[in-house]
Amino acid sequence: MLAELKRRVCEANRRLPGLGLAPLNFGNASGIDRERGILGIKPSGVDYAGLRPADIVLVDLGGKVVEGRLRPSTDTPTHVELYRAFPAIGGIVHTHSPHATAFAQAGRAIPALGTTHADFFDGPVPVTRTLRASELKGTYERDTARAVTELLAALKADPLHLPAALVRHHAPFVWGVSLDKAVENAVALEFCARCAWLTLALEPRAKPLPEGLRRRHFYRKHGAAAYYGQPL
Amino acid sequence: MLAELKRRVCEANRRLPGLGLAPLNFGNASGIDRERGILGIKPSGVDYAGLRPADIVLVDLGGKVVEGRLRPSTDTPTHVELYRAFPAIGGIVHTHSPHATAFAQAGRAIPALGTTHADFFDGPVPVTRTLRASELKGTYERDTARAVTELLAALKADPLHLPAALVRHHAPFVWGVSLDKAVENAVALEFCARCAWLTLALEPRAKPLPEGLRRRHFYRKHGAAAYYGQPL
Amino acid sequence: MLAELKRRVCEANRRLPGLGLAPLNFGNASGIDRERGILGIKPSGVDYAGLRPADIVLVDLGGKVVEGRLRPSTDTPTHVELYRAFPAIGGIVHTHSPHATAFAQAGRAIPALGTTHADFFDGPVPVTRTLRASELKGTYERDTARAVTELLAALKADPLHLPAALVRHHAPFVWGVSLDKAVENAVALEFCARCAWLTLALEPRAKPLPEGLRRRHFYRKHGAAAYYGQPL
Amino acid sequence: MLAELKRRVCEANRRLPGLGLAPLNFGNASGIDRERGILGIKPSGVDYAGLRPADIVLVDLGGKVVEGRLRPSTDTPTHVELYRAFPAIGGIVHTHSPHATAFAQAGRAIPALGTTHADFFDGPVPVTRTLRASELKGTYERDTARAVTELLAALKADPLHLPAALVRHHAPFVWGVSLDKAVENAVALEFCARCAWLTLALEPRAKPLPEGLRRRHFYRKHGAAAYYGQPL
Repeated sequence: MLAELKRRVCEANRRLPGLGLAPLNFGNASGIDRERGILGIKPSGVDYAGLRPADIVLVDLGGKVVEGRLRPSTDTPTHVELYRAFPAIGGIVHTHSPHATAFAQAGRAIPALGTTHADFFDGPVPVTRTLRASELKGTYERDTARAVTELLAALKADPLHLPAALVRHHAPFVWGVSLDKAVENAVALEFCARCAWLTLALEPRAKPLPEGLRRRHFYRKHGAAAYYGQPL
Repeated sequence: MLAELKRRVCEANRRLPGLGLAPLNFGNASGIDRERGILGIKPSGVDYAGLRPADIVLVDLGGKVVEGRLRPSTDTPTHVELYRAFPAIGGIVHTHSPHATAFAQAGRAIPALGTTHADFFDGPVPVTRTLRASELKGTYERDTARAVTELLAALKADPLHLPAALVRHHAPFVWGVSLDKAVENAVALEFCARCAWLTLALEPRAKPLPEGLRRRHFYRKHGAAAYYGQPL
Repeated sequence: MLAELKRRVCEANRRLPGLGLAPLNFGNASGIDRERGILGIKPSGVDYAGLRPADIVLVDLGGKVVEGRLRPSTDTPTHVELYRAFPAIGGIVHTHSPHATAFAQAGRAIPALGTTHADFFDGPVPVTRTLRASELKGTYERDTARAVTELLAALKADPLHLPAALVRHHAPFVWGVSLDKAVENAVALEFCARCAWLTLALEPRAKPLPEGLRRRHFYRKHGAAAYYGQPL
Repeated sequence: MLAELKRRVCEANRRLPGLGLAPLNFGNASGIDRERGILGIKPSGVDYAGLRPADIVLVDLGGKVVEGRLRPSTDTPTHVELYRAFPAIGGIVHTHSPHATAFAQAGRAIPALGTTHADFFDGPVPVTRTLRASELKGTYERDTARAVTELLAALKADPLHLPAALVRHHAPFVWGVSLDKAVENAVALEFCARCAWLTLALEPRAKPLPEGLRRRHFYRKHGAAAYYGQPL
């Protein structure tokens, strides 16, 4: 069932350590078949190196496993909730990439300091609030996603224009129109976090790039008037 | 004698440089056969690259060499003492991994700033006191271990829940229920030290993650109610 | 047409990610045939890995595509303008190398703190002014180059003695007498930026190297009295 | 002539970039045949990758080329002077390794903050004074070495116990009883510089390790009572 989805999810997960996004077996990637409402996700606590398409667990949007020999990632309820809240996204990557994780641990948004950031994210990458004690019991993983979706709603942000958020004290969740795009966004997020970190170490009062420059870069790559890249 | 132990100890040692844990011939790994009370350890001052199982030195819990053509690591008395004090552990890795070493040199514990840390260590990774002048003579290497075991006793910590300590002015010692687990913990320790270092550079007053979140992460992976990973 | 130029431009672009200068498909390299007044440049938004000489787009000094199946880099007007303003240069590399990008984002020149810098750059690597709102519309990419050429003119700098500038809020542009030299200068720029960044973290008031030492190093490698390297 | 020396010098130079000690063609290594009073050194401005034994230039202790098709390194007078001043050394490595270079550019000695440092260097790695204007003309490269030898003399340091110094505004020179040992010391120097840099970023007032611990580590590896490593 859904062999192609399982193949793509397996491949995306296997790329994460080589991209410097996930040491040991930290992190996980998922992709969704929107027609069937079924997502494929990494099994829990399994090494990336030996992962095969048959290991990918299929889960429906109610969070129920519909196929798979293995337990799905403990973060599965977070993925499910994000797919439910953001109908336009096709893939999600949760990493522990070091510089983005440092911003999450510091409880600080990644500021938009340069055009590299503006090429991918239409504004700072925000950080969620501290979870309430009640949210740390029971449905903790689902509540983690709710802190993310609540945050994007408060910012009135289009999830495809702001395809990432930092979970406070934890690490980033990144998404995209497709799983490949989500992986690309996760690489860009870590690179932007690293450049922002290097910039702030040099100049703690560094200012965001000017609004006009930010918009020029974002909209030369995204939307109707984009002229970056090749015509489809 | 104990061919399988020697093979595993050799392999664990050979993995250290590739994992970024030990430049040149710094560091060493050991594993123990608890039934016989014999441990295998890296020979002293030997390069990792050419290490073979026959080079591994077998030592008993009195610190006596029972097999081996080569001198054991100068840190052997530290390993022996840790195996004696912590009967539940099966392997020990001593690294000079750079970020953990920086915390040891600064005389600071690695604070538990995020869930990555909480997945492995049930609290900050502590740093030992300065050794007394008398301890720097004679049985210095054994006294190093005693500063570690004294520290865990003072914290009332279960060594399997807090599987690492920083030796002040020196570097980390890391252990685990098995040697493979000890190597995994050593990789996690350096990653957590790096993320903590990056976080503190960004926000010197960064706070530890909330107690409830720390416990949720530690106990979803460890203990009777764990639901992370696959059933055994 | 210009097969050798396309081959060299393709190869230079393909080297960028391995040199740590350009993650994902950030950055671009171009080379010029001065006799014909035609430059070859990377196509827009294309991955480095699969790039072939036939993908290189040929553009004249009026900015018109003269050959190529693909859209040229969105930064093409920047390259064209630099070739027009600096007739002695043969190649241009635009990178997003992280430490140089951090200086650009901080709005700070890379100071000449040591002989490594002086071996390549006859003075600090300067940063352009903020673009005016009017420059962020229309011919933004050309105006970016004009901010660079205006800066070098104000410094009365020979572009071959100061073969790089930081575009504020963006990243570096680097050039050289040939495309190979431009790539070498881009590697040197990132290395000097990294060493300057490390130095300033250690000693925020670090002083530039003395004028006499700077000149000794620059002129032992460059100009009529150079004695570094092999006779041609 | 001296085929074995040329082979070893070639190999040592070729190892430098892979060890992270010398980007591009920065840096150089030399070795000496003390009986004949002849040293072999890297040719000037040549890439490491293609270096062959026949490219190594042989130079006598008067600084005269005695064999070689190529110009020797511009730093040859520095090497010659160090071999003359330190009769016990057999090899010299000059690197631009980034953290050691940052200390040199900041004009700060690398403090002995931990046992890793004490395993190799019997005290802080010192930095030379600023060269006088007169020394930047004429015999600049020889005067660079004199600033180093003057510094070790003032510290009453045995060059084999303090096998490195930082040239202010420049980078480290490292040596050893043999060329292999000099390369090992250069790797250790960069690692210790990196750990010291990380420590000082965390704790700017970090103190040196206690004298007794420093001596215990240095003398368990060096001198008559050493017990680290294997018997010869």
